[in-house]
Amino acid sequence: MFLTRSEYDRGVNTFSPEGRLFQVEYAIEAIKLGTTAIGIQTSEGVVLAVEKRVSSKLLEADSIEKVMEIDVNLGCAVSGMTADARTMIEHARVAAQNHRFAYNESLKVESVTQSVCDLALRFGEGAEGEESIMSRPFGVALLIAGVDEKGPQLFHADPSGTFMKYQAKAIGSGSEGAQTELQKEYHKSITLVEAETLALTVLKSVMEEKLSKTNVQLASVTLKDNFRVYSTDELQAVIDRL
Amino acid sequence: MFLTRSEYDRGVNTFSPEGRLFQVEYAIEAIKLGTTAIGIQTSEGVVLAVEKRVSSKLLEADSIEKVMEIDVNLGCAVSGMTADARTMIEHARVAAQNHRFAYNESLKVESVTQSVCDLALRFGEGAEGEESIMSRPFGVALLIAGVDEKGPQLFHADPSGTFMKYQAKAIGSGSEGAQTELQKEYHKSITLVEAETLALTVLKSVMEEKLSKTNVQLASVTLKDNFRVYSTDELQAVIDRL
Amino acid sequence: MFLTRSEYDRGVNTFSPEGRLFQVEYAIEAIKLGTTAIGIQTSEGVVLAVEKRVSSKLLEADSIEKVMEIDVNLGCAVSGMTADARTMIEHARVAAQNHRFAYNESLKVESVTQSVCDLALRFGEGAEGEESIMSRPFGVALLIAGVDEKGPQLFHADPSGTFMKYQAKAIGSGSEGAQTELQKEYHKSITLVEAETLALTVLKSVMEEKLSKTNVQLASVTLKDNFRVYSTDELQAVIDRL
Amino acid sequence: MFLTRSEYDRGVNTFSPEGRLFQVEYAIEAIKLGTTAIGIQTSEGVVLAVEKRVSSKLLEADSIEKVMEIDVNLGCAVSGMTADARTMIEHARVAAQNHRFAYNESLKVESVTQSVCDLALRFGEGAEGEESIMSRPFGVALLIAGVDEKGPQLFHADPSGTFMKYQAKAIGSGSEGAQTELQKEYHKSITLVEAETLALTVLKSVMEEKLSKTNVQLASVTLKDNFRVYSTDELQAVIDRL
Amino acid sequence: MFLTRSEYDRGVNTFSPEGRLFQVEYAIEAIKLGTTAIGIQTSEGVVLAVEKRVSSKLLEADSIEKVMEIDVNLGCAVSGMTADARTMIEHARVAAQNHRFAYNESLKVESVTQSVCDLALRFGEGAEGEESIMSRPFGVALLIAGVDEKGPQLFHADPSGTFMKYQAKAIGSGSEGAQTELQKEYHKSITLVEAETLALTVLKSVMEEKLSKTNVQLASVTLKDNFRVYSTDELQAVIDRL
Amino acid sequence: MFLTRSEYDRGVNTFSPEGRLFQVEYAIEAIKLGTTAIGIQTSEGVVLAVEKRVSSKLLEADSIEKVMEIDVNLGCAVSGMTADARTMIEHARVAAQNHRFAYNESLKVESVTQSVCDLALRFGEGAEGEESIMSRPFGVALLIAGVDEKGPQLFHADPSGTFMKYQAKAIGSGSEGAQTELQKEYHKSITLVEAETLALTVLKSVMEEKLSKTNVQLASVTLKDNFRVYSTDELQAVIDRL
Amino acid sequence: MFLTRSEYDRGVNTFSPEGRLFQVEYAIEAIKLGTTAIGIQTSEGVVLAVEKRVSSKLLEADSIEKVMEIDVNLGCAVSGMTADARTMIEHARVAAQNHRFAYNESLKVESVTQSVCDLALRFGEGAEGEESIMSRPFGVALLIAGVDEKGPQLFHADPSGTFMKYQAKAIGSGSEGAQTELQKEYHKSITLVEAETLALTVLKSVMEEKLSKTNVQLASVTLKDNFRVYSTDELQAVIDRL
Repeated sequence: MFLTRSEYDRGVNTFSPEGRLFQVEYAIEAIKLGTTAIGIQTSEGVVLAVEKRVSSKLLEADSIEKVMEIDVNLGCAVSGMTADARTMIEHARVAAQNHRFAYNESLKVESVTQSVCDLALRFGEGAEGEESIMSRPFGVALLIAGVDEKGPQLFHADPSGTFMKYQAKAIGSGSEGAQTELQKEYHKSITLVEAETLALTVLKSVMEEKLSKTNVQLASVTLKDNFRVYSTDELQAVIDRL
Repeated sequence: MFLTRSEYDRGVNTFSPEGRLFQVEYAIEAIKLGTTAIGIQTSEGVVLAVEKRVSSKLLEADSIEKVMEIDVNLGCAVSGMTADARTMIEHARVAAQNHRFAYNESLKVESVTQSVCDLALRFGEGAEGEESIMSRPFGVALLIAGVDEKGPQLFHADPSGTFMKYQAKAIGSGSEGAQTELQKEYHKSITLVEAETLALTVLKSVMEEKLSKTNVQLASVTLKDNFRVYSTDELQAVIDRL
Repeated sequence: MFLTRSEYDRGVNTFSPEGRLFQVEYAIEAIKLGTTAIGIQTSEGVVLAVEKRVSSKLLEADSIEKVMEIDVNLGCAVSGMTADARTMIEHARVAAQNHRFAYNESLKVESVTQSVCDLALRFGEGAEGEESIMSRPFGVALLIAGVDEKGPQLFHADPSGTFMKYQAKAIGSGSEGAQTELQKEYHKSITLVEAETLALTVLKSVMEEKLSKTNVQLASVTLKDNFRVYSTDELQAVIDRL
Repeated sequence: MFLTRSEYDRGVNTFSPEGRLFQVEYAIEAIKLGTTAIGIQTSEGVVLAVEKRVSSKLLEADSIEKVMEIDVNLGCAVSGMTADARTMIEHARVAAQNHRFAYNESLKVESVTQSVCDLALRFGEGAEGEESIMSRPFGVALLIAGVDEKGPQLFHADPSGTFMKYQAKAIGSGSEGAQTELQKEYHKSITLVEAETLALTVLKSVMEEKLSKTNVQLASVTLKDNFRVYSTDELQAVIDRL
Repeated sequence: MFLTRSEYDRGVNTFSPEGRLFQVEYAIEAIKLGTTAIGIQTSEGVVLAVEKRVSSKLLEADSIEKVMEIDVNLGCAVSGMTADARTMIEHARVAAQNHRFAYNESLKVESVTQSVCDLALRFGEGAEGEESIMSRPFGVALLIAGVDEKGPQLFHADPSGTFMKYQAKAIGSGSEGAQTELQKEYHKSITLVEAETLALTVLKSVMEEKLSKTNVQLASVTLKDNFRVYSTDELQAVIDRL
Repeated sequence: MFLTRSEYDRGVNTFSPEGRLFQVEYAIEAIKLGTTAIGIQTSEGVVLAVEKRVSSKLLEADSIEKVMEIDVNLGCAVSGMTADARTMIEHARVAAQNHRFAYNESLKVESVTQSVCDLALRFGEGAEGEESIMSRPFGVALLIAGVDEKGPQLFHADPSGTFMKYQAKAIGSGSEGAQTELQKEYHKSITLVEAETLALTVLKSVMEEKLSKTNVQLASVTLKDNFRVYSTDELQAVIDRL
Repeated sequence: MFLTRSEYDRGVNTFSPEGRLFQVEYAIEAIKLGTTAIGIQTSEGVVLAVEKRVSSKLLEADSIEKVMEIDVNLGCAVSGMTADARTMIEHARVAAQNHRFAYNESLKVESVTQSVCDLALRFGEGAEGEESIMSRPFGVALLIAGVDEKGPQLFHADPSGTFMKYQAKAIGSGSEGAQTELQKEYHKSITLVEAETLALTVLKSVMEEKLSKTNVQLASVTLKDNFRVYSTDELQAVIDRL
């Protein structure tokens, strides 16, 4: 009586008889083609580690941004379609700036995440006079890290507009193996330094290339230093600890 | 002479020869994939109990919100697509705030339910200049609980924009078994304390995982305390009573 | 040379070679899935009786509204899709209020019916800046009852936007049997009290469940009392007369 | 090389290889499903006679309007989709009122016909900010009768937006037989009284039911009395003459 | 490798692999279903002759307008879809009036033709706030005749928006035979009186019915008399000359 | 794995797997159905020569415009769909006038070409409030000739919106043979008189009909005389030189 | 269960089950049909070298612009669809001018690249009131070169809206072979003069035609001279060095 899956999976917003939205699920697949990214939350701050695929010796590795600042207290690691990620980060930055301008305080980690997820949900709407909205689901997942009055927090947002809070989370092509390892090694009293090591250790185990200071990026959001991307030297120091 | 069902079930707003709207029916299916939620109305107030699926040890369970405040006197339990639920709750909150601002009184339980159902009905309309409207039916069911001059009340709203008032109602993947049990155990003179116990007893019977303070949430709207989510200790106390 | 019916019945506004609009005809089918409703006009006023399907013991029967006030002198019984009905009634109420506000008189029964039918005809138009218009035909039929200078009147409106005046009319799943019986029993000199009895007698004969004060509703619009829904006691009194 | 007709007949505005617009032709078919209506022009005025299908004994026959006033000097008989007819008549009335308001004179019979035909031609245009325009051809034919400085006139308008002037014209399901008879009996010196008799005689010959004062309507537009629908007594008097 | 013609001929604006627009070509076919019209240019003025299909004895032949005034110095004969023709003539009249109002001179024959052709080209554009534009090509051909400072001129315009100037041109169902005969008989020093005779002679040779004063129309635009339609007597006089 | 070409060639803006836009390529085919046009640039000015297809003896050859003025210093020869050409020339004229009005200087040859090509690129955009934009690619090619501070120049523009500067270029059905011949005979020191002869010689060699003063047109843009179309006598003089 | 690729590759913004957007990938294919372009970054500045396909001896080679100025400090080499490239460069120029006007400084190389990529991402959006946005992905790749406070930089942007920074990068039909050679020969201490030689050497090795001053173009953006295209003499001098 029912058609096979393939009859329902091209309409951007068509439910299948079982109540599934396949185009959103396929966008989630787009992320499995992306580079791996890892976030670990500690009581001192959140560590974000990302893999960079440097496809050519002549590509300037530091021009590949997979971890970005949203506001002084907010950072983000991404996996999936690069250009989509840029749109979402830009949206998050504007939301954070608007809040800071209006209330003279930084936006809460959960609020910035929700703002980005509301954008993700609105694809296919054709609203006018507003900032750019996509005619398809976003093909990107985000790990949003930040510190606010509730302390350091890590959120995961996906193309369906769903977000959840994690102690440690991996996204991208190596996410399955990475998440298993995180689950095994993570403990509540982990220090920021231990989290740095754990993030790179896990990333190393799922990367096809040999991990080096040119193909990974490390960043953190801490109570002390806010968001910052590690310098090459700092990164090498962490790699040396592995 | 007629085609099979599958020829009518992809147009968002196409009637089948028997007068059915399949896309709305499939959206209702989306809810059967969701977590179970239960609402029980008593003369003292309404109890809402929801299951939370904590898919990973590292997921912070308290970031999963399946029961939310709409206004001081209004709460809501949801089942189905998380991001859709957020949009509907946000709509309800705005409606409640607008009413409070304009008339200096809280919105009636039935009115807030009707407002949310009107939104549900309007998908596929492409209205402009208004708040976000979906191009597909919402994939979420709501149990809206509240107290107003008519006393404590519990409403159920579904993707077709239909709402009804219940003494006790279950939604989500375990709803069939749960509703049967509620029908057996509910009586008109049930107290709030008994309703708390009944809600968790029923939830326990339909959950695959062992019920614990981390994978369920309990809330109530009462004449005395308005809407509030139970603290972990309060929740544990109810679990201990089972 | 011609295709079978199934080739023309999915376009919302496509004529078949015989000049039929199938989507409108299918919407009329949606009403045959609805509960039965009956209207009887007398010289004293119009009686409306509706069946309520109380699918669960825990469903509060009085939250199912199948008969509603439009204005003090106007009422309506509905059959079909509940949420669509709400939209049409709301439209009728606004039309009645606007007329009262502008001309300080109540809207005529025929005028309010015409207003609702004009809305029904306009689906699929995508007008902007106006109140909500559906992208499909409405899946609801209405029995509009009222009193004005022409005395008590009963109108029937269907999804095609067609309306007609009846002395007695049944809609919904039991409409065929009910209409036959009405035709047999109705006479021009019927009193309001006799019409109450006739309405429930006919409803009883087509309902699957046993008729009781919880699964039917009775209302009237009279010259004396305007529109009013009967209280449970009044309803029981009529049932006792059967 | 060419496809069969069925490949070109669903697009609202698609030409077939022979240069035909099938959706408009199918709308014309819709009229062949409608009741029969007849118009006869005399030097004294125009007579309009229409059949009414009273499908139920309880249906109030006088609520079926198949002949309607447009302005004091203009009337119209319709066949086809009732709700579409209402929209076109409303359009004609507004055009007539606007003209009267702006120029203090009644609109000419040809002008009001042209105004209605322009509306018919504009389906599928999606114009904004204007009165309602259909997304499909109108499924209705009109016999527009009136008197102006050119004397009594009768126009026929169809869904293609084409109009022509007739001495006598029949539309609807019985139109073929009726037109043949009109052609046989009509003569230029026919009096209004003879035209009344001829109209009903022809209608009688094509109606399935026995013609009576409840299932036909008679109206005229004359130089003396403008547009008026005949009272039941007047109608019975004409029937008695047959 | 290529599909057959039928795969490209339904999109309103789709090129076939050979660079053809079939929907426009099919609209041109619509004209071959129309009545024949003939235009002949002389040094004194232009003669327009059209066939009228009087399908019923009761149809008032003089209400069929196939030759119409655009402005005092401009006339037009049409073949094809009547309602489309009316829209184009109306457009031409407005253009002529606007020009006269703005510059106090009559619009040139070529300019009015170009204005009509620009409208023909713009179908399927969905422009807003402008006069009615069709969502399909116009199914009508025009012979536009006029006098201006360049003397008497005759233009032919077709659904593709192309126009050309002719000494003599036939359109409609009999156009092929008629054009051949025109080519044989036309000479540069033809007088207006000879052109009248030639036009009717050619029309007679391609009409199925016997040519008479009721089924043809004759008009001319001359330096002396501007545009005028011949009276029945004048027409009969020309017929008598044949 | 890939579909055949025919699966990608009907969407106006759909890439094929090899990265081709077939609808644009088919529009280029439309030009191969057009008349041949030739442009030759010399140091004195640019010569434009076009073929005219005079399909009927009664067609006034001088009403076929295949070479047109854009501004005093700018001219254009076209091949392909006549009505499309008119739209593009009109666009070019407006651009030239606007520039002259705003800056009191003539628009550069390259600028007017770019303006026309930007229009060609924008089909299918549905922009509002702007001048007419097509919903399909333009089916026309242009040879734009002009003089400005850089001297005489010749540009070729095609439906893809691409333009290039040529010393000599042929378009239309005979373009292949003509281009080969131009390549053989053209030399940098060619005089305007020699270019006139060459243009007609080449045209003659590719035309099916015998070249005469009625079926070709000649024009030039020179430093001395700006744009001008040759009179019949001047044209005959050039033909006599062949 | 899944369909083949061909079922997902025509919707402009449809994800395939593996999470791919085929229309964007096909647009990237369009570039592989384009001419080869090479960019090399040195500490003194960036060199851009492009191939020009001079399809006809009569085509003025210097009218083919494959390398263009964006602002005094910014240049761009393109490969793919010429008209698309013009739109993107125009967008970049406006962005650069706006920035200069607002802040009195030149736009950063990365910023102008991001601006162009944001435009690329927004196809299919139908935004109104903005500059032209395409209804399909852009079929063009860009090498954006510039100098700013960070020194000389080279960016590569593709139809997906992704951009990356390169030391040396080749695009177009010969890009694979060229990139391999660049990878072999490029070193960090390369001088601008060596880069000129390397660029042409690589281009020579992948071009089908013999490299000469007429079929290549060379440009540079340096700290000293900003953006400039090499004169024919300068170009010949570099060719002589090969």
